[in-house]
Amino acid sequence: MDIGAILTGEAADASVGESIYRLAAKLFPICRSLTGPGVRETLGLLQKIVPLELRRVPTGTPILDWTAPKEWTIRDAWVKNAAGERVIDFRASNLHVMGYSVPVHRTMPLAELKRHVFSLPDHPNLIPYRTGYYAATWGFCVSQEVLDALPEGDYEVMIDSSLDDGELVYGEYLHKGRSEDEFLLTTHCCHPSMANDNCSGLALLTHLAAEISRMETRLSYRFLWLPGTIGAIAWLAANDAHAGRIRHGLVVSGVGDPGGPTYKRTRRGDAPIDRAMVHLLRHAAGKPEVIEFSPYGYDERQFNTPGYKLDVGLIQRSRFGSYPQYHTSADNLDFIAPESLADSYRLIVDAIGLIETNSAYLNTLPKGEPQLGKRGLYDKIGGDPDTYGSRMALLWLLNLSDGEHTLLDIAERSGLPYATVARTARMLEAEGLLRALAAAG
Amino acid sequence: MDIGAILTGEAADASVGESIYRLAAKLFPICRSLTGPGVRETLGLLQKIVPLELRRVPTGTPILDWTAPKEWTIRDAWVKNAAGERVIDFRASNLHVMGYSVPVHRTMPLAELKRHVFSLPDHPNLIPYRTGYYAATWGFCVSQEVLDALPEGDYEVMIDSSLDDGELVYGEYLHKGRSEDEFLLTTHCCHPSMANDNCSGLALLTHLAAEISRMETRLSYRFLWLPGTIGAIAWLAANDAHAGRIRHGLVVSGVGDPGGPTYKRTRRGDAPIDRAMVHLLRHAAGKPEVIEFSPYGYDERQFNTPGYKLDVGLIQRSRFGSYPQYHTSADNLDFIAPESLADSYRLIVDAIGLIETNSAYLNTLPKGEPQLGKRGLYDKIGGDPDTYGSRMALLWLLNLSDGEHTLLDIAERSGLPYATVARTARMLEAEGLLRALAAAG
Amino acid sequence: MDIGAILTGEAADASVGESIYRLAAKLFPICRSLTGPGVRETLGLLQKIVPLELRRVPTGTPILDWTAPKEWTIRDAWVKNAAGERVIDFRASNLHVMGYSVPVHRTMPLAELKRHVFSLPDHPNLIPYRTGYYAATWGFCVSQEVLDALPEGDYEVMIDSSLDDGELVYGEYLHKGRSEDEFLLTTHCCHPSMANDNCSGLALLTHLAAEISRMETRLSYRFLWLPGTIGAIAWLAANDAHAGRIRHGLVVSGVGDPGGPTYKRTRRGDAPIDRAMVHLLRHAAGKPEVIEFSPYGYDERQFNTPGYKLDVGLIQRSRFGSYPQYHTSADNLDFIAPESLADSYRLIVDAIGLIETNSAYLNTLPKGEPQLGKRGLYDKIGGDPDTYGSRMALLWLLNLSDGEHTLLDIAERSGLPYATVARTARMLEAEGLLRALAAAG
Repeated sequence: MDIGAILTGEAADASVGESIYRLAAKLFPICRSLTGPGVRETLGLLQKIVPLELRRVPTGTPILDWTAPKEWTIRDAWVKNAAGERVIDFRASNLHVMGYSVPVHRTMPLAELKRHVFSLPDHPNLIPYRTGYYAATWGFCVSQEVLDALPEGDYEVMIDSSLDDGELVYGEYLHKGRSEDEFLLTTHCCHPSMANDNCSGLALLTHLAAEISRMETRLSYRFLWLPGTIGAIAWLAANDAHAGRIRHGLVVSGVGDPGGPTYKRTRRGDAPIDRAMVHLLRHAAGKPEVIEFSPYGYDERQFNTPGYKLDVGLIQRSRFGSYPQYHTSADNLDFIAPESLADSYRLIVDAIGLIETNSAYLNTLPKGEPQLGKRGLYDKIGGDPDTYGSRMALLWLLNLSDGEHTLLDIAERSGLPYATVARTARMLEAEGLLRALAAAG
Repeated sequence: MDIGAILTGEAADASVGESIYRLAAKLFPICRSLTGPGVRETLGLLQKIVPLELRRVPTGTPILDWTAPKEWTIRDAWVKNAAGERVIDFRASNLHVMGYSVPVHRTMPLAELKRHVFSLPDHPNLIPYRTGYYAATWGFCVSQEVLDALPEGDYEVMIDSSLDDGELVYGEYLHKGRSEDEFLLTTHCCHPSMANDNCSGLALLTHLAAEISRMETRLSYRFLWLPGTIGAIAWLAANDAHAGRIRHGLVVSGVGDPGGPTYKRTRRGDAPIDRAMVHLLRHAAGKPEVIEFSPYGYDERQFNTPGYKLDVGLIQRSRFGSYPQYHTSADNLDFIAPESLADSYRLIVDAIGLIETNSAYLNTLPKGEPQLGKRGLYDKIGGDPDTYGSRMALLWLLNLSDGEHTLLDIAERSGLPYATVARTARMLEAEGLLRALAAAG
Repeated sequence: MDIGAILTGEAADASVGESIYRLAAKLFPICRSLTGPGVRETLGLLQKIVPLELRRVPTGTPILDWTAPKEWTIRDAWVKNAAGERVIDFRASNLHVMGYSVPVHRTMPLAELKRHVFSLPDHPNLIPYRTGYYAATWGFCVSQEVLDALPEGDYEVMIDSSLDDGELVYGEYLHKGRSEDEFLLTTHCCHPSMANDNCSGLALLTHLAAEISRMETRLSYRFLWLPGTIGAIAWLAANDAHAGRIRHGLVVSGVGDPGGPTYKRTRRGDAPIDRAMVHLLRHAAGKPEVIEFSPYGYDERQFNTPGYKLDVGLIQRSRFGSYPQYHTSADNLDFIAPESLADSYRLIVDAIGLIETNSAYLNTLPKGEPQLGKRGLYDKIGGDPDTYGSRMALLWLLNLSDGEHTLLDIAERSGLPYATVARTARMLEAEGLLRALAAAG
């Protein structure tokens, strides 16, 4: 399939939202963290859909200013009351154990236990999600309701975990296009049972990689499934010499909830990916929002550091941290929906289509307007799904195709959707009225 | 008369609105189209006021991507009912016949006739204006009320027209200034009995050409009275080699109604004519509006094609297509008024004055402020019609006259009207406090 | 004391507002004008605090387009009624005599007297402030109430003044920094008993000069206490050859009232001092307002003339001319307050601190984010008065320190206060994570 199919909507399989949802649901129960069996199990499931490769970085490997951490394995964890009942139980929710908790097995009074327990007083029935990656400590996360119901007394506390030399693992898949210039798509794979953040991103990116793998593309497409921060650091350390090939990028995260869509700009702020996303969001359904770059967020932080300055933005639905379900047990499979996933997917696909096809054209009859009637162009436009738009697109394309305006420039100036402008350009090119110049970058 | 007179208001003869109105009224009854006797009759009337030349392009002449069309002559047209009464009659309104209708003389039932009749259901008492330039067809335009009153039955239909080899005719007048750089002013001459669109433009441009012809100017002024689209194409085809002399331009159209004024920017958007018009509209009475360029409109479309990129904007009162009288029989002599015509005239004259005189100055005493009191400048300013404005203009002119700011720059930055700034600059120049540099372009 | 102390607030002695107020109160009763004993007495009082030098320009000296005026001495003035009572009395308020009044001693009817009397009908209980510098005339200023109460009849009018060859005097103090580039601070010393305009400015600038004199600075600081307009002209005439050393400047005027603060931009509009003040006002308390440059105002007019183009802005509280107390007897010591003076002082000190310290940095670990935890940086930030701000500042500094962004650029982009960004930069520099480049200008 040619990438141009994207522009005509052929690539928008209506069932894609369902497929992504089903994969996200399959990933949901797995207990992921920065390292450990959960990440391997997750990536193994994804490999059934796209032939991603596992990259392994042994514990202790220096990676930029960091070091690959010990591998964390969690087998079980609980708190038992005096009656021996599990009042907090890892088997009920893997959020109950703070990520990277060191092992513990002791009996202690409630007051001491509470110093290791996290809850959300403002959302008393939700379990929070917490980690303690680089501090040798342990903790439990519980709902305020459960915590309040614990009577005074002694509790037996057990975390059956280990922190051993092992490996940091991430997934990578490269689709080669005609150019070595790359479009980077990444998502984080280090969160346990939270559906939006980030089973949605894992599943969407996997389906997207599978679809791109079947296409002829101009750019090369690099997909990364990374443990947050440390995974991006590891990839950059391993790919320092050719990281500059990345010309456009998107971090994909939290793409299944009903809010947004929200796009966060790159550090540069007006990169081609920024212009593409801002344009698409201007015409998007929902409550589209464009937010400025800040060095707080997901792995776009790493790609946008001054030593790399890679033009990588962030696409999500609701802005992270802005919704009550964020980083809690309420971020479950009810919080995401096939429609939202399909909409996010379509948006990213449209961005890819735009970046792939955006180029400038030359009007071959630039002096005065060509006589459109004698060429039957009005009839041809009559068949377009957006007749008014394509008629205006035709006039704008003829007027601005002096080699100095790309299709996106024309879409922005005319206020028309890129897809309408691009479709009409193809029609005019077929008529010999436009001649394409090389794609924009 | 020196062009500078414009700035002092000497050129603003209060009766100019009446003169333009009278000429528009004289032109109103003539049945114009792209070609034919009505255009010749119209241009002949204008020649009594300004010595414009008729340019003649024989039918079939290739002009850019187009061909000069056959000449259309309409002598009479009617629809008769069974009683032989003219129920639609070209003699009552030349709008009744669709422009470029081919001849027909047949009797047909009402249903068949209706396929050739245009009306306005939303404005049931108005006759629409329609043309069918490049399709060999015929049609009648009637009010919905008349159409609804036609009983079933047979009707005798007659259009006594001819489409023959002939000529495309347009009018041209060049006023030579000191420079070969040109200011282009055009208007369309192809509409039948509609007062605002465009008897108003025809009459205004003619009076303006007559006035300019009596002036010493820096720029040369080219006036064109053109059949829409095809006339501009014909002129460009004939003048391709030196079209680039056009440095500024205005299409003048629909300048007699009570709305606006409305200025549509050039393709470039910030050309000198754009800056001039935007400035003048900022200080204009009425409901001034500046709209962005789009490749939909009048002949500015042709001049702004990428093969020419001439800085030609559009001046009108109400935006075309935005008022119910537009392209109907309600666009009659009651819809235009001498006051509106005079206001439009004044605006265009002011734009010419601005473009003619806009230049940068040097403050001859640039270090600290000059002592104004000892030169009696406060008294001189006291005699200006705008004392406060001219006092501020004086301070701004002294402050910004470093050779890098034109009078328009200073007017824009200070928020003062250009005329006040220009008058004050002349006064300061006479005092030796400013020295003029060459005009801006 | 190092200039850096400014950033930590060490320089912000809480009592500074009281000290400035006390000095303003001491200056308030003195009858100042462009020239004369009042100016010398005023500058003499200031010399007790800072070793400013008196510059003397003899009457008649040509200074740019002007001439040093005669010196005006006023000893007494009154209007007596038929009973010999002083109904207007200079001893009650020095505002009663128009500045630069020529001597007069005559008896005249009320009608004639009134042609020399100024009052404020809209503010009937206030005495206006008026001058007649360059016209050989005399006048009295009284409240409308007093004026209305004068019965018809003859009045004895006496002004015991003299206009003799003498000198124009102004004060100057230069604090030398490491660079010859200068920061200019000026205020006008020519107004009689008005507290805000401009005892406040005189007192503030004097205390500021004293504080700066005890500091190590990068820039040199030039302080001028000038009679309005003519003083700036005199200084420029005397310093024409090296006026270009002035890189930044502020005219300080009306800095004690409860309004504002208001900053008026330089002619250039985006000079470093403009950016600094706009930034500080964005984070300022009160009703901060930034207004555009205009060639109407205080001595910034002279410094911004095209022959000098010095980047000198204006700082005041309420915008001059915008409050009813302006240039009246209501501008008394009740109208100014230590809190407002302290706030103005702090704002100017912050601007100086910003201009002194603003520079770009290089992130020494630019590839990926450094691992902050292992360096204990989170704890160090925890001790900052603005923990959230300094944490975000840390991330922004690491992200934007590529040598192309100054601290102010980073403060503006992040929305954080400059002081937070600068403090955090010092901490990161101490950690070796940032390396400073040369200061910005």
